Amino acid sequence: MNQDYIQANTWSIIEEGFDKDRVESSESLFSLGNGAMGQRANFEEDYSGSTFQGSYIAGVYYPDKTRVGWWKNGYPEYFAKVLNAPNWIGIQVFVNSEALDLNTCKKVISFRRELNMKEGWYKRSFQAILSNEVEVAVTVTRFLSLDLDEVGAIKYEVVVLNDDAEVKMIPYLDSGIKNRDSNWDDKFWNTTDVSYENNRAFIEAHTMKTNFATCTFMQAEAASEGASITISKSEKSETKASLEFVHDLKKGEKMALVKFGGYTTSRYHKATDLVKAANNALDEATKIGFEGLLEKQKQAWADIWWMSDISINGDIKAQQGIRFNIFQLNQTYLGKDSRLNIGPKGFTGEKYGGSTYWDTEAYCLPFYMATKDQTVAWNLLKYRYNHLEKAIENAQKLGFKNGAALYPMVTMNGEECHNEWEITFEEIHRNGAIAFAIFNYYRFTGDYSYIPEMGLEVLIGIARFWHQRANYSENKEKYVILGVTGPNEYENNVNNNWYTNYLAKWCIDYTLEELEKVKEGYPEDYDRIIGLTKLSASETEQWQEVADNLYFPYSEKHTVYLQQDGFLDKELITVDKLPKTERPINQKWSWDRILRSPYIKQADVLQGFYFFEDHFSTEELKRHFDFYEPFTVHESSLSPCVHSIQAAKLGRMQQAYEFYLRTSRLDLDDYNKEVEEGLHITSMAGTWMSIVEGFGGMRVIDDKLNFTPQIPEEWDSYSFKINFRNRIIKVTVTKKGSNYELAGNEEMSIRVNGERVVLLPGKTVEA
Amino acid sequence: MNQDYIQANTWSIIEEGFDKDRVESSESLFSLGNGAMGQRANFEEDYSGSTFQGSYIAGVYYPDKTRVGWWKNGYPEYFAKVLNAPNWIGIQVFVNSEALDLNTCKKVISFRRELNMKEGWYKRSFQAILSNEVEVAVTVTRFLSLDLDEVGAIKYEVVVLNDDAEVKMIPYLDSGIKNRDSNWDDKFWNTTDVSYENNRAFIEAHTMKTNFATCTFMQAEAASEGASITISKSEKSETKASLEFVHDLKKGEKMALVKFGGYTTSRYHKATDLVKAANNALDEATKIGFEGLLEKQKQAWADIWWMSDISINGDIKAQQGIRFNIFQLNQTYLGKDSRLNIGPKGFTGEKYGGSTYWDTEAYCLPFYMATKDQTVAWNLLKYRYNHLEKAIENAQKLGFKNGAALYPMVTMNGEECHNEWEITFEEIHRNGAIAFAIFNYYRFTGDYSYIPEMGLEVLIGIARFWHQRANYSENKEKYVILGVTGPNEYENNVNNNWYTNYLAKWCIDYTLEELEKVKEGYPEDYDRIIGLTKLSASETEQWQEVADNLYFPYSEKHTVYLQQDGFLDKELITVDKLPKTERPINQKWSWDRILRSPYIKQADVLQGFYFFEDHFSTEELKRHFDFYEPFTVHESSLSPCVHSIQAAKLGRMQQAYEFYLRTSRLDLDDYNKEVEEGLHITSMAGTWMSIVEGFGGMRVIDDKLNFTPQIPEEWDSYSFKINFRNRIIKVTVTKKGSNYELAGNEEMSIRVNGERVVLLPGKTVEA
Repeated sequence: MNQDYIQANTWSIIEEGFDKDRVESSESLFSLGNGAMGQRANFEEDYSGSTFQGSYIAGVYYPDKTRVGWWKNGYPEYFAKVLNAPNWIGIQVFVNSEALDLNTCKKVISFRRELNMKEGWYKRSFQAILSNEVEVAVTVTRFLSLDLDEVGAIKYEVVVLNDDAEVKMIPYLDSGIKNRDSNWDDKFWNTTDVSYENNRAFIEAHTMKTNFATCTFMQAEAASEGASITISKSEKSETKASLEFVHDLKKGEKMALVKFGGYTTSRYHKATDLVKAANNALDEATKIGFEGLLEKQKQAWADIWWMSDISINGDIKAQQGIRFNIFQLNQTYLGKDSRLNIGPKGFTGEKYGGSTYWDTEAYCLPFYMATKDQTVAWNLLKYRYNHLEKAIENAQKLGFKNGAALYPMVTMNGEECHNEWEITFEEIHRNGAIAFAIFNYYRFTGDYSYIPEMGLEVLIGIARFWHQRANYSENKEKYVILGVTGPNEYENNVNNNWYTNYLAKWCIDYTLEELEKVKEGYPEDYDRIIGLTKLSASETEQWQEVADNLYFPYSEKHTVYLQQDGFLDKELITVDKLPKTERPINQKWSWDRILRSPYIKQADVLQGFYFFEDHFSTEELKRHFDFYEPFTVHESSLSPCVHSIQAAKLGRMQQAYEFYLRTSRLDLDDYNKEVEEGLHITSMAGTWMSIVEGFGGMRVIDDKLNFTPQIPEEWDSYSFKINFRNRIIKVTVTKKGSNYELAGNEEMSIRVNGERVVLLPGKTVEA
Repeated sequence: MNQDYIQANTWSIIEEGFDKDRVESSESLFSLGNGAMGQRANFEEDYSGSTFQGSYIAGVYYPDKTRVGWWKNGYPEYFAKVLNAPNWIGIQVFVNSEALDLNTCKKVISFRRELNMKEGWYKRSFQAILSNEVEVAVTVTRFLSLDLDEVGAIKYEVVVLNDDAEVKMIPYLDSGIKNRDSNWDDKFWNTTDVSYENNRAFIEAHTMKTNFATCTFMQAEAASEGASITISKSEKSETKASLEFVHDLKKGEKMALVKFGGYTTSRYHKATDLVKAANNALDEATKIGFEGLLEKQKQAWADIWWMSDISINGDIKAQQGIRFNIFQLNQTYLGKDSRLNIGPKGFTGEKYGGSTYWDTEAYCLPFYMATKDQTVAWNLLKYRYNHLEKAIENAQKLGFKNGAALYPMVTMNGEECHNEWEITFEEIHRNGAIAFAIFNYYRFTGDYSYIPEMGLEVLIGIARFWHQRANYSENKEKYVILGVTGPNEYENNVNNNWYTNYLAKWCIDYTLEELEKVKEGYPEDYDRIIGLTKLSASETEQWQEVADNLYFPYSEKHTVYLQQDGFLDKELITVDKLPKTERPINQKWSWDRILRSPYIKQADVLQGFYFFEDHFSTEELKRHFDFYEPFTVHESSLSPCVHSIQAAKLGRMQQAYEFYLRTSRLDLDDYNKEVEEGLHITSMAGTWMSIVEGFGGMRVIDDKLNFTPQIPEEWDSYSFKINFRNRIIKVTVTKKGSNYELAGNEEMSIRVNGERVVLLPGKTVEA
């Protein structure tokens, strides 16, 4: 743990007291998002201290020119970068002509932030004495509407406490913003028009190169003690529009400004209609009003929580952690638009160009499948189908042919956004996770339709890749896969990474199976797909030859699969023997030392045991867990969750709980010392898995929902809901046992600890 | 071959005709250097076309802030970059007020460049018609004096051919220059003073951060038809100083300007005395005069050629190639200053930060040992001794302790200048080449003194590194060296690279031997060194344990040592089966594909066979050559020479000759399509080795000089000189046999084809 200033609270994230050194961290932690746009918790008024400004529009990106030390053939020329968008939240505040600025004011008497996760709003309140001795109390409430997802709302209230004073508020729009993360200091935005009309203003700007047209808009109304204040001035410049409200407040009086703002973009409107669309959005927001919109916000979040909440009794920090994770996931992605995905930083920072890693398929899909309508997961799958053509192009660039597909390591639009050869070109297991997600979707939802409609084409591209990527070793008399990086990125360019090889074989076998199923069940789709892909029997025979003769490194001595060729040549000293001063090794050791060490960044062989649990006995899992976990440093945010699930399966609840805490409060407690850069969104889905699959033991086996519930010693009880094939089951686990409530009106049977349990609608069944 | 415009000529490099697309290439090929400074063949007069400006001062560098895509722990924060220095050559020329500019003039009627290697000067002559219809003939002669190595000289002559015209010449100095290669567009130079006095001008500027103080100076005199022309104007600005000469020429008359210029630096003078030193240099140059200095230049080059020339009869292109190589090596490094070294681009470009690679020890040392006074090689060894402390720091940064030394991959001042993890941290075999050079120096010169004085400390640091870098594999019951890059950089992060392991063992064994020898023969030095290094018996026992039990990958089936673990798992398709369209693979293939292929960039196992030839039988060499060469793509400039030597040893003279041509005319024919960036200086020493060690078969065995001369079919004869332990032997090889001339007045015996031959001074002995 690296910080401890967030107050423990079951439903809110709360910070008390002003600390300039925490501003950037809190800007991340108190971020807002509504799936369509996002906003770091930057102050509305001027702040001259250290701050990381961030406003984001989902799916609006810029292809920044790649920057590397030494160019390697095959690197993408450009990569899509998350963009800091024009600022719509800004409100300059002057008190007797002095700018309100918490960095320079005489004293901050009190300061409080609350992110109310239950209701989806963020409130900041403070009292401060300005240099001119005026003391003010400020309360700001802000939310990004889930109902009108182009609109955000701010209520900015100022009370002068110790004297009469003139207060001036200047709500503004600003498109003269910059990215912190920019390779060549290019200009990302081109502003084409700035205008205002009555109490509204608009900035039209488009992104360079990608040419996403946007209109950033606002509307402001101010009032004091019930009387509205008229605009005293409207101004505009090349990249800025502002309105001015001035009012003389008597001591103790309040001035309140309500600002609606946000973005309309060419992603959803005609580029020529953006101001009109903005006016429509503002009309709608005005009609509902700030309070009405806030009420709707509370209701919308209540609906989300009704389905996706996990409640934990007896452990406030654990409760806060999981809710923070679920809240952020829902702020980031709501599954409405299949062109969007779940960025590793969501709407909380710029780090990592692009938005989609294999995290989506390996870690996020289960959460969205179980807590949302099925279309959300479908949209996540469709996203990859839409990128198939670019994945084929990407593979061609690397020398593959004949429709082989290699999905990018990270992407925004299907193109690769990564440029470290050992990852970009070699961390190819990502292809397998995409195939696994197709399997997993069908396993969980029972909906086969994606496979004949889209999935089979994706699978064929992936199977082709693996077939071509393997080569025959005369020496081993087996097919081998050379020069890869596994999920454990602390090994680069290794041969026969077991996880990668296992996935490769599985992908081919699975694709061949699905080809047969589609041929039988969906002959028209089959013909269409064979026609499209020109897949021949001789090609699939070659696939089979590779899959049947793939090499898997194994140690007879340790009776474990080896992470890769040569793993046993390392100096096998377990992590517990490493001095604390040398941890984390990614900050303390040079890269070569990390590479030749046995230390594992995140589950690698064990990731395979997680995906393909049913291929191995618990005894085998135990052997591999006991062999690999002691070498694992868990320096990836994605590591603890898988280990938590497996520790729980092995009945090691104390260890499972420790892993859980680490994943669930990763950002709140800033374990990785980087929360100011943004949150770790995708690993938050892993936290959800830790509880539901780990402690709850949820599995789908032979079309049936299974649970093997356990509970950490520290907890009194916990409960969660699962949407399993449109049936909602609420699971509650206590120290004594577990119970199940089924919504709807048909009974269904599940298995608890291997025993069949029949659930009756509306009844709580103990098991 | 990528270009064919350089005329075949035994002593000169000649270009005829003006082609704007060749300007940058020729700027590299016609570069001048005198060991202390260098100058690309940029035009003196303005040129608005595409040009790569380069003036260089030996040892003056700038620590540019590192730029990488993704930072890896252990990377150097800064690295020394070759600096484009203030321009001293510039002369603006106006004819009837129109600027002479070959890019914009109406017509270039003729254009010729000659780099006279025999005499060390560069001449450019052209006739051109300006837009104002005046036709001029221009001849420019330029050289960098070997005698006054702070001084360069230019004679710039203009004749107006078709009419009377006013000619204005403005010789200038300019410190407002930029590097083409700059990571962050930092300002590299800070100009502190610009001044002029009569016909001289001075710019004082120092490098940022490194604070090398320099004075760039010039002196100009102009005359026409015997009458001197007075200065009409002197000007200066913040970074520029200029003098102006104007004269009305009648049709057919000539105006000539002689400019001396160059640099004095704080590397050789007090920083406050630079203008004074510049005046002294100019006084000296003026005293000798342009023609006198040119005469001295011819004599100085005659002296160099007397010793280092290789003459080839019957093959002009081969002759031109080897002389170009020898010329450039002598332009780059003359061994006067042990703080200097041989940069891979010499004074011909900016590419590669830093100047010193393992190329110096592995490829350049033999040339300098055999063609120069012994002190030159001594200075090259001393350079590394001077950097020992920094090599120890570098190793510490990577986690090594106790005085282990890792020399940088490339350096200017002992600090690492490289930042690709797979090279910087893993291409550690470079350490071995430094130890080998110590061994090689003693073997060739018979001078043991370096070892007790300096070398043993270097060897101890290196042995310590290898001891710590190896780890014990329980699995193999041997010590292994994991995660390295060998000389074949088309493999990264491999385990047990045979060459690296072999060098590691040899380094330890050799260091232990030398420890014994120094202990016996130089007890005082021994005590000093043991005291300094705190080397204990238990430590050397541990070294021995590692050296005695190091693992060497070997194939019983192929009876060859394997380049690395797992080499035989590759798809072993030989290079001749690769389509031409896929070559060179480093331009056609993505990096991962190169890595998993069997293709070898340059000698790797065979580099070990080159260094340690006497450890292996010719039959073993043949087996390894026949196994590895067919997989070798020779895409490093350092590859052909080693293979040429080995092919010659195996009696495959046709193959040896083809390798020779490729190495000797690499830049003249631009095989690598990059000559505009600068020349490949270090591989030029490899060309010399191809003839002397390859065709001539020169070896030192048991303190005796040996030859096994052969001659390529294409040649009538060739001859070279060797300085062996201060005895100069001239070797001439013809189709019929070989003969030897010994200078001096004592006889000596050598071996030719294994037979003892006694050489008598002044006599030509046939063998």
